Amino acid sequence: MFMDTMKSLRDIVYKANMELAASGLVMGTFGNLSAVDRAAGVFVIKPSGVPYGQLTPSHMVPVSLETGEAVGSGLRPSSDTATHLELYRAFDCGAVVHTHSEYATLFAQVRTPIRCMGTTHADYFRGDVPVTRPMTRPEVESDYERNTGLVIVETFRDISPSEVSAVLVANHGPFTWGPDAPTAIENARVLEYLARLEWRARTMVPDASRPDTFLIDRHFLRKHGPGAYYGQK
Amino acid sequence: MFMDTMKSLRDIVYKANMELAASGLVMGTFGNLSAVDRAAGVFVIKPSGVPYGQLTPSHMVPVSLETGEAVGSGLRPSSDTATHLELYRAFDCGAVVHTHSEYATLFAQVRTPIRCMGTTHADYFRGDVPVTRPMTRPEVESDYERNTGLVIVETFRDISPSEVSAVLVANHGPFTWGPDAPTAIENARVLEYLARLEWRARTMVPDASRPDTFLIDRHFLRKHGPGAYYGQK
Amino acid sequence: MFMDTMKSLRDIVYKANMELAASGLVMGTFGNLSAVDRAAGVFVIKPSGVPYGQLTPSHMVPVSLETGEAVGSGLRPSSDTATHLELYRAFDCGAVVHTHSEYATLFAQVRTPIRCMGTTHADYFRGDVPVTRPMTRPEVESDYERNTGLVIVETFRDISPSEVSAVLVANHGPFTWGPDAPTAIENARVLEYLARLEWRARTMVPDASRPDTFLIDRHFLRKHGPGAYYGQK
Amino acid sequence: MFMDTMKSLRDIVYKANMELAASGLVMGTFGNLSAVDRAAGVFVIKPSGVPYGQLTPSHMVPVSLETGEAVGSGLRPSSDTATHLELYRAFDCGAVVHTHSEYATLFAQVRTPIRCMGTTHADYFRGDVPVTRPMTRPEVESDYERNTGLVIVETFRDISPSEVSAVLVANHGPFTWGPDAPTAIENARVLEYLARLEWRARTMVPDASRPDTFLIDRHFLRKHGPGAYYGQK
Repeated sequence: MFMDTMKSLRDIVYKANMELAASGLVMGTFGNLSAVDRAAGVFVIKPSGVPYGQLTPSHMVPVSLETGEAVGSGLRPSSDTATHLELYRAFDCGAVVHTHSEYATLFAQVRTPIRCMGTTHADYFRGDVPVTRPMTRPEVESDYERNTGLVIVETFRDISPSEVSAVLVANHGPFTWGPDAPTAIENARVLEYLARLEWRARTMVPDASRPDTFLIDRHFLRKHGPGAYYGQK
Repeated sequence: MFMDTMKSLRDIVYKANMELAASGLVMGTFGNLSAVDRAAGVFVIKPSGVPYGQLTPSHMVPVSLETGEAVGSGLRPSSDTATHLELYRAFDCGAVVHTHSEYATLFAQVRTPIRCMGTTHADYFRGDVPVTRPMTRPEVESDYERNTGLVIVETFRDISPSEVSAVLVANHGPFTWGPDAPTAIENARVLEYLARLEWRARTMVPDASRPDTFLIDRHFLRKHGPGAYYGQK
Repeated sequence: MFMDTMKSLRDIVYKANMELAASGLVMGTFGNLSAVDRAAGVFVIKPSGVPYGQLTPSHMVPVSLETGEAVGSGLRPSSDTATHLELYRAFDCGAVVHTHSEYATLFAQVRTPIRCMGTTHADYFRGDVPVTRPMTRPEVESDYERNTGLVIVETFRDISPSEVSAVLVANHGPFTWGPDAPTAIENARVLEYLARLEWRARTMVPDASRPDTFLIDRHFLRKHGPGAYYGQK
Repeated sequence: MFMDTMKSLRDIVYKANMELAASGLVMGTFGNLSAVDRAAGVFVIKPSGVPYGQLTPSHMVPVSLETGEAVGSGLRPSSDTATHLELYRAFDCGAVVHTHSEYATLFAQVRTPIRCMGTTHADYFRGDVPVTRPMTRPEVESDYERNTGLVIVETFRDISPSEVSAVLVANHGPFTWGPDAPTAIENARVLEYLARLEWRARTMVPDASRPDTFLIDRHFLRKHGPGAYYGQK
């Protein structure tokens, strides 16, 4: 039964990684997506540095939530595996995505949050998308990928990862997450859209006024709150 | 006969919404288009939150111009229905479009009108495309979508909605309209083109001189005035 | 024999207009291309306001170089016909193109020349692409399209139209020309490329130094001068 | 055997030039790629000014590393051949690429290095991508293409061409190189991506802080150093 679950999760993760490749959000072999099966104590992630065109479901690598080690023989998991692991440990989410999408990466490189400037942003994220602090030399030189995850978690000390499901790692790039793989990809896609808008806003009107909080809340809750009335029942 | 009219209008609205989806002006399930049959007292609009790939003509929702309620059982209409309703009540138009097209949304987010800086703009809109005032807390917290329509109408107190068939709702996005669905979509498409140009103009030469009014009038009237001489007779 | 010449020229102009439509340099029915047969005293141009998808070679309209009138019955010629006419009268060229390509139009709208900042520019145009002066009220209100042509010609009083085969009409858009239709289109395409680069240069480093004249000359003459050594003999 | 080697190298260079044409990094017939066979003392390069659609492997031109002359009869080699030659003489590389890709060319035109602002840059290039000094009048007026190569080599006096495999020639455009043709193209592609990000960074936050050197080193060495752990073993 464990094998069945893994097969199914591998299929999901394979398909989602291929969708990510087709989305224009990744460059070359960059970018990776994982999804978790918490009952099985395992998440499945893309292997490291294999061109998207050569991937098959069986290449996807199961990793133990407890040990962080690949389960069974097979390919080496994504070099960002330890970052995904820390996000699964700290956040209540079902899938994690890392891309180098151009505009979100830009904001990461200049360490500037993506402000919530309108209803499109508020339909997805309830507030600014934050940037992590720069990592220290010890954090970079040892256990770099794990520390990347920890510094993300630290950034969400006072932010709900369910209300803002995205982060920019300083001088690196974006991570997004969600209850499942399609939602995590959708969040990566919307994040890129919002980053494009925000870059254009800042280059044209650097000191534009923010929208009122009651407008943000209205839109976020219209789609995500208990009284949500967007879409079909 | 009412059923025939509705079937035909549903077909028109379905096809126009699909064209909108293919235009690149909408993102995900965002964006909606409606068209009105004033004799029948009904307009037809896209349902709320259904992926474009799953839509069929029968999903389109007829709404009463008098009550604002969906006519007959069926899907829930777009969450922006009450906004469309107020535009049909106040403006002499046959179709309304709402998109989140990137550049027009940008101008809405920074509350900056799209100035009329050249003949391409004047070929379509006789003057600046205005931004609504920010909505108040009571307007947002109760009857939000209807109040969105009312604040648009208020913006056109001194502007002719036939000469400028587009508006930017503050921190939200653009609405356009026209005598029929293709023209309303064309206006949305041109608005996005003009917003791109204006953003680039403002980031390069913020204080560029405006063209003379007689040049604007010449172009608008060459295509829209009584002595229009553009196109075939 | 006149009919044969016209048939052949109509085919050329039809094909070139369709290539223009596919190039992304025009929007909707905007944009037009003409080509001249000086021996026959006629140029052929696109008709006004017909969607590109409906055009056929027989729709192309021959116009007399002497009278500026359409020759024979048929469709109304492009509303910009009188502009093309004045360019054929003043410049030694075989084809004229008008587009609303986005970046070139932007420079026209903010009345800013496209400076010659590098070798890519110099490979095509030997110096800045100029902007016309704004037209006066009388020029706009009567014989507008003819006056557009005259104001372009005035702009080239001290510039060789063979060395710089492009112009920006103030608050309007670009015209390009060349010995034949493919070259005129190529110039429109390159102009747009150069406008994109120049816009990005001006938004990033407004006061960048210009390249030395000997570098410009080297590149222009390597392709266009008597001792040209680019391409195969 | 020399003929066999040449046939194989011509095939490689032909295919790589076609890939370059499809990459969006070149415009028209601009752009060229060569690859070297050091044992045979020959590199093979694209002919000058032939449209990509007409190229075949047999059009590729072998050039002697010793004399810089085309070997055997055939087409005239790319006008940039002498530049490639000097790079092969000075750098330990197997292939050279020249493009007019838009953003990299922009940085060349405003003589601004592409700073290393994040991990995506560091994954490929260990430090800023430099700009050559402007060339002098004698350098431009005689042996221009050879001097272009020499001025590139001069720029790398204190930079390792293996760690930074790209350069911007002032007011001209980018050259990249690598151990083989696919890597040289990949470097051209990544350079363009990095130039886009850096242009957006500079227009938004001109004085953004640079990342720490230990972060750059970590990423460069994770992929390129002796202890590289990216990809499969």
